[in-house]
Formats: sequence, structure tokens, C-alpha cells
Amino acid sequence: MKKTAKELAAAVGATVEGNGDLELAAVASPERAGLRDLIYADSAKNVPRAQSSAAICVVALPGVDLRGKTVLRSITPKLTFAKAAGLLMGRPPIAAGVHPTAIIAALVQISLNASIGPYAVIGEDVHIGEETQIGPHAVIGAGCWIGKNCRIHPRVTLYSGVRIGDRVEIHSGAVIGADGFGYAFGDGQHWKFPQTGIVEIGDDVEIGANATIDRGSLADTRIAAGVKLDNLVHVGHNCEIGEHSVIAAQAGLSGSCTFGKNVVVGGQAGFAEHCKLEDGAIVGGQTGVLPGKTIRGGEPVWGTPARSLEKFKEQFAWQSRLPELAARIKNLESSVRK
Amino acid sequence: MKKTAKELAAAVGATVEGNGDLELAAVASPERAGLRDLIYADSAKNVPRAQSSAAICVVALPGVDLRGKTVLRSITPKLTFAKAAGLLMGRPPIAAGVHPTAIIAALVQISLNASIGPYAVIGEDVHIGEETQIGPHAVIGAGCWIGKNCRIHPRVTLYSGVRIGDRVEIHSGAVIGADGFGYAFGDGQHWKFPQTGIVEIGDDVEIGANATIDRGSLADTRIAAGVKLDNLVHVGHNCEIGEHSVIAAQAGLSGSCTFGKNVVVGGQAGFAEHCKLEDGAIVGGQTGVLPGKTIRGGEPVWGTPARSLEKFKEQFAWQSRLPELAARIKNLESSVRK
Amino acid sequence: MKKTAKELAAAVGATVEGNGDLELAAVASPERAGLRDLIYADSAKNVPRAQSSAAICVVALPGVDLRGKTVLRSITPKLTFAKAAGLLMGRPPIAAGVHPTAIIAALVQISLNASIGPYAVIGEDVHIGEETQIGPHAVIGAGCWIGKNCRIHPRVTLYSGVRIGDRVEIHSGAVIGADGFGYAFGDGQHWKFPQTGIVEIGDDVEIGANATIDRGSLADTRIAAGVKLDNLVHVGHNCEIGEHSVIAAQAGLSGSCTFGKNVVVGGQAGFAEHCKLEDGAIVGGQTGVLPGKTIRGGEPVWGTPARSLEKFKEQFAWQSRLPELAARIKNLESSVRK
Repeated sequence: MKKTAKELAAAVGATVEGNGDLELAAVASPERAGLRDLIYADSAKNVPRAQSSAAICVVALPGVDLRGKTVLRSITPKLTFAKAAGLLMGRPPIAAGVHPTAIIAALVQISLNASIGPYAVIGEDVHIGEETQIGPHAVIGAGCWIGKNCRIHPRVTLYSGVRIGDRVEIHSGAVIGADGFGYAFGDGQHWKFPQTGIVEIGDDVEIGANATIDRGSLADTRIAAGVKLDNLVHVGHNCEIGEHSVIAAQAGLSGSCTFGKNVVVGGQAGFAEHCKLEDGAIVGGQTGVLPGKTIRGGEPVWGTPARSLEKFKEQFAWQSRLPELAARIKNLESSVRK
Repeated sequence: MKKTAKELAAAVGATVEGNGDLELAAVASPERAGLRDLIYADSAKNVPRAQSSAAICVVALPGVDLRGKTVLRSITPKLTFAKAAGLLMGRPPIAAGVHPTAIIAALVQISLNASIGPYAVIGEDVHIGEETQIGPHAVIGAGCWIGKNCRIHPRVTLYSGVRIGDRVEIHSGAVIGADGFGYAFGDGQHWKFPQTGIVEIGDDVEIGANATIDRGSLADTRIAAGVKLDNLVHVGHNCEIGEHSVIAAQAGLSGSCTFGKNVVVGGQAGFAEHCKLEDGAIVGGQTGVLPGKTIRGGEPVWGTPARSLEKFKEQFAWQSRLPELAARIKNLESSVRK
Repeated sequence: MKKTAKELAAAVGATVEGNGDLELAAVASPERAGLRDLIYADSAKNVPRAQSSAAICVVALPGVDLRGKTVLRSITPKLTFAKAAGLLMGRPPIAAGVHPTAIIAALVQISLNASIGPYAVIGEDVHIGEETQIGPHAVIGAGCWIGKNCRIHPRVTLYSGVRIGDRVEIHSGAVIGADGFGYAFGDGQHWKFPQTGIVEIGDDVEIGANATIDRGSLADTRIAAGVKLDNLVHVGHNCEIGEHSVIAAQAGLSGSCTFGKNVVVGGQAGFAEHCKLEDGAIVGGQTGVLPGKTIRGGEPVWGTPARSLEKFKEQFAWQSRLPELAARIKNLESSVRK
């Protein structure tokens, strides 16, 4: 999918300075780039790296001087670079055609140009959308609905009844729709609470390797459009995650958490049952949010239990000064006792 | 497995008020229920939801007024509902029959009505009990022993020699019996310590998706009857977990931890080597327990390092008041200096 | 691989006292050992266990009296035992020969005595070294290079282009080379940042079950020789981990962390982007290291944010005394006010 600098600029909304007819084939870092690779420089620090790169074409901020280079001007070079990368670089195929070893149950609908890899097992009544690729060893439970242009990597499991939108990417080892962790205790043992809901995943979601998203118990688990979940993230039953929220690796949501839109969660953060994150909430890595708590948008929180980052910093500073405070108390006691 | 209200009440130990001949087919939440779905109301808050539901039959506390409904009276409505759900609702099948693509080594014993899904790989000398279902792509190592009525979901791995009781459910992606993490350092490198023990799992255990339970090194790893482990839980070599203990998602046990019966562990809690949890210990989410520590039953602990929840709260309250304490010290210093 | 005590001593650099012609077949704990099992005693506490064991041959410190036993003397009994175990005990095979159901793409090089298990899927241009065993259901992406004597357990996924050295062991469910978690936000959505680097894994690395190591974005992710990663560890894109470093279960590295040699990381520790751990750094369990921070070698750190263990302990001690300090301030206030 080669493009000229001019074509690329038009597609991503940048302006060209220099040779607009220059043909670009890929993207790279300044150090690894060849002549036909696009690079970017988003800070003063990175300008010398760009200048000395073998690459000829650079995405850079207006006003940044890059002698001898063709420059795509953008006030958001990293974003522009990411968009250009999406246009220039094909994604490696996950499957090509429907492999004869794929086991496909009755009443499965395989849309035009959908691909299914070797040894995949597709349950009854599954729908697979156009151009969707399903990798080797994927197990798709009965009644799942998968939209268009999805990339289901090898060894993904969807339990029955999972619904997935368009352009969703699910990485290897992820398990979607397993039973939630719910029991009622009585007579000295735990009785399984029914886990009969489903998982619904919106368009443009990406789910990391070995992540787990449990099905709803009596309600459903819902991941809205544009959400990005990193590797080994856990989402409990009945959680709802709003549009374009981003959750870093190893974070975990207990049951029935409700996250708004554009939430940002750091790695290894944990959420007890029935937490609520409002739109735009920002939760630091390893933060722990107590059951039923609400986190407001815009004000970052940190620590366990979660408090505002500002408050955390203040408390932390005083903790470091505890030995000093104790010494001052001792001094006061000596003075007063005299 | 339809049942009348009367039959159901008899089976779960409730009493019926209203139409005992009403036929029930499933369970649901009040909002989603149809005429033949059983619902429950376990708190005053939920009574209006139950009252306005399309469902006719409700499990509710004695004395709760639900006009026009058939009521199953129980002092533990959620428990009774869970038991009823188990009777009414079949579980979706994981496999049906022994699929011709399953690879079954020599000397495997497949009991009556056991099922093995497509592409499962069963090693030598494995025993599979009656009615047990093994999902597609499961890999069962040589010499494993699996009891009756187990549900081994797709893409579970059992390394060799794992022993599993009856009615055990293991979710997709779980890995049981991988080598423990043990090395001896010398000559500038880590030498693998032998990991020759096995994993023993009791009856009625449930293990979450992508959880990992390592085999013993020179001893065994043991999970007792009725234990429930959530997704992505890690259990190190030589750990022992007592009956009916419950461990929430992403919690991790280092090697040689010993947990008693009815222990409750919150999500993302961590346990260093040789921890001991006595019967009935309660450990909050994200808590960290130091090597060799003992946690007593009944008194919840929290924080890293773990302390009693009461103590944690007291300390936390004072931490929040540190700026105030510091100001008071300053005031005192001014007064005394005068 | 039976060996006499004499042969074993010579191979591991120990000296024999007693019957050097004694034939040994395996290793065990003192309690489980039979006549021909080797055991060890590395502390005074363990000497009675060794003495009363059925085993005849014990690895023990110089000077420790073990009547009637043949003793392999070593100043590092556990290390010597581990080395001896490696010589005595074969590892259970993961695969034997190339199974006819393995799907092997064009231009795959399978070296002498390499084995590939049932239903493994090997992409184009893959190289598999001598004596390497690849388990059932492994999925090896196009262009991967795997060295000699590796043990790739069942259900491992390597995305395309992963390079693996010799004697590497990767446990079931691990996913190597999935896309890193990188996006640029704009126009109300997250645009995927290109993830075109690879993962490079050195010799003698061991990777735990369900661990995830992401491929580089524009650079590569590198795991040096001798590194040991426990189960469910996450390594983000562009991380570099130095030789012989050890990372315990459920620890997580965000993107672009750089770890030196011989680093030791406890379970559930978390590292924000661009952390740097110098050679010999020691990071306690559940510790959280902030973005861009450097941790020096030799001085253990703990807590979130990470500080020296010594400092943590001091602060923690004062926290416990906060109620007392507050009472003393109150007393002072009463005295001064008088």
C-alpha cells in the first residue's frame, strides 16, 4: 500500500513541504528507517534523531527545521504518524480462506472474504462478518455474533452468545464470556449463582493477550466502542465500560463496575464491586478503589484506598517527614517539662 | 428441566405461597424475566423490582408482601434462588461424545458418557470419569486422573500427573501443573530446582479462566474440595488451600503457602512464600502478606504489609490528618519559643 | 539416567563420603524418598529429616554428621542437589517426532531430532533447532526462529518474527509477540500506534504459564540469556531485561522499561513506562515504580511509590505510632495552654 507523501498528507490532514511525489512504503524509528520509511519527531529532543536518519520523509511540528527532508507538517506528529502507519502498512494476516481443518457446526454464517484458520472450532449459529479473520485454534461458542473486519488471533476462546462489533481485535489467549465469579454460601458450601448473561463488545475494541472478560450473571457485561484493554486485564460479570476507555495491563474489575467514557486506568489497578468511574476518570497504576465508590472525572486518583493524586502526594510527603515530626514533638516535650 | 413451584420448593427447602402448580423453566433478573422465570428479592430495595416483574414466581423473605405472585419463602433468598437455578437450568454442553479428531493415547480410560471435544489431546494412562466433558483443544498430560461430572472447558492444559476430583469445573485457558518457579543460583546462573510433585484438586472445585496452578517441587500442590479460584489467579508450587476457600481474581500465592478452610481472599492480594492463613481468614483486595506470616481467622486484614483492617483504618485516618498534626506542632513550637 | 554417587559427585563438584558405588535414580524430599533417591539437607533443621529418610544418599554441608548415609559434601547443598537432579532426571517429553496433524507451512526448517506435537501450526519460514520440542496446539507465527533444545509447551503462541535462543523453556498459554499497547488519541478515538518490532529471547530463558511478552513498537523487546519469568508476568513493548534477571509471578512491566543484569523482582510488582533497574536491583513484591525512575543495584526497594526498604520500614513504624504521636501533641497543647 505504497503512497506518495502528497497522497499521505491529504489522507491524514497534513501539509507537505518538499518532494510530494516521494513514495513511502512503511514506517520506522529514525534509527532503523530506510529511504522509503516515514518517521516522526514530536519533540525538540527527537529532531536530531530525525535529521540524521536515512529516512527522507518526516512528520514534524510546524516551524521545526529539517534540512533536506520532506516534511509532513502536523501539530500532532505522533497522531499523524499513527494514522499514516495505518494507511501504509498492512497488518499480517491471521488466516487466509477457510481452512479445511476448521470445524464448523450447523447454521454458521460465514460472510464474504471471512477467513478461518486451521483447527478453529466454530459452534452452531455463529455469524462471522465480512473480511473477519479468525486464527488457528480459536474456539467460538454457539450463537456468537462477530462483525466485519475483526481480527481474532490464534487461541482466543469465546464462550457461547458473545456479541462482537466491527473492526474488533482480540489477541491470543483471551477468554471472553467465561462464567462470572458468583456464589451463594449455605450448608457449608458455595452454590454457583447462575451466570446466564452475555458479553457485548462494541466496534473498534482491542483486547490484549490472555485478558479475561466474564459473561453477565443475570444482566450482561458490556464493553463499548473504542475501548482498549491491555494484556491480562480482568473484567468481572455485569461490568460496563464506556466508549474509548483505556485500561492498562493486569488491571482488574470485580463484578458490576460501571465505567464512563474516556476513562484511563493504569496497570494493576483494582476495582471492588459496584465501583463507578465517571466520564474522564483517571486512575493511577496499582490504585485500589473500594466497593461502591465513585471516582469523578478529570481529577486523577492514586493509592489504596484511592484518593486524589494531590492528596496522596501531600500525605506521602508528610509520611517521609514523620521521623522529623516525632523529633520535634520530643523536643517540645523536653522544653515544656523544664 | 422444568419444575413446578411445589417441586422446586420441596427440592430447595422453601415453602410455597400461591400457585404451587405453576411451571418454571428458568431463572432471570426481575427486568428480563418472562412468565415462567423464577426471580428473587433479597432486600426491601428489590421488592418493587420483583413486584413489577413479568415473572409470577419470586423467592422472597418471610413477611414480604408480593401481591399476585407465587412466593417461595426462604430466609436466604439468594441462596435458595441459586439452588433452584442449579435444578432448573442445564449447563451448556462443552462436548458431546468423543470427537473423531480427539487424539487419545494408549491406555486412556474413558468412562461411560464422558465426552471429548474436537482436537483435544489426551496423553497416556489418563482416566476420565463418568459424564465428564472435556472441551475442544484441551491438552491432558500423561497420567492425569479426572473424576466424574467434571467440566473442562476448551483450551485448558493439564500437565502430566494432575489429579482432579468429581464435579470440578475448569475454565478456558487455565494451566494446571506447570513447573513451579524454583531455582538455585550458582556459577553466575540459575539452576532449575526439580519440580516433580503433582497437583491434586478436590471435588467441587471451580478454577477461573487463565488461572495457573503450579505442580509441587518435591511435595505436591493441593486444592481441597469446594475451593473457588477466580480468573488469572496464580497458585505457586507446594501450596495447600483448604476446603471451601474462595480466592478472587488476580490474587497470587508464592510457593508453600498454607491456607485453611473457608478462607476468603480479595482480588490482587499477594502472598509471599510460606504464608499461613488459618481457617476463616479474611484478606482484603490488594493486601500483601509477608513471607512466613500467619493470618488468624475471623479478623479481616488489609494493606501491605497486612495488618488488621481496624488498625489500617486508624492509621489511614491519621495519615489524612498529618498536615493538621504538623500545623499543631508548628503552633506549639511558636508558643514554647516565646 | 542412573548414576553412581561417585559419578554424580564428580559431575557436580562434590566429594563423596561412604559408598561411592551406590546407584541413584532420582531425587526426592526426605519423606518421600526411596533407597535410590538423592535427598539434601541445607540447614540444621533438616538434618533429622535426612537422617530418618529411607534415602541412603544425602547432599549435605561439610561437618554435618549423617550416620549410615552416603554423603555428597557441598558448601551449597541445594545448588548441588539441583545440578544433580538435572543429571539424574529426564524431563517429560513434550512431543515425540513430527505428528502428522501438525500443519507446517512452506519453507519451514525442522532440524535433526526436533519434535512437533499434534495440531501445532507452524507458519512460513520458521526455523526449529535440533532436539527442540514443540507441544500440541502451539501456534508459531511466520518467520520465527527457535534455537536448539528448546521446550515449547502445549498451547504457546508465538506471533510472527519472534527469535528464541537455545535451551529456552516456554510454558503453556504464554503469548510472545502480541501487539504492544500503544495508541495516539485524536478526533475522539485511539489510533493504533504501529507495533512492528519483534521479540528476542536469549539462551536458557524460562517463561511461565500464561505470561505475555509484547513485541516492540518501532524498536524490539529483548529478554537476555538466563532470564526467568514466572507465570502471568507481563512485559510491555520495547522492554529490555538483562541477563539472569528473575521476575516473580504477576509482575508487570509497562513499555520501554530497561532492566540490568541479575535483577530480582517480587510478585505483583509494577513498573511504569521507561523505568530503569540497574544491575542487581532488588524490588519487593507489589512494589510500584513510577515512570522514568531509576532503581539502583544492591539496595532493596519496596512500596508504592518505591523507596528503600529501610526507609519504608522506618516510615511504616512511625505510621503505627501515629495515634501515640497525636496523643502526645494533645498533651503538649494542654500543658502549653495552661
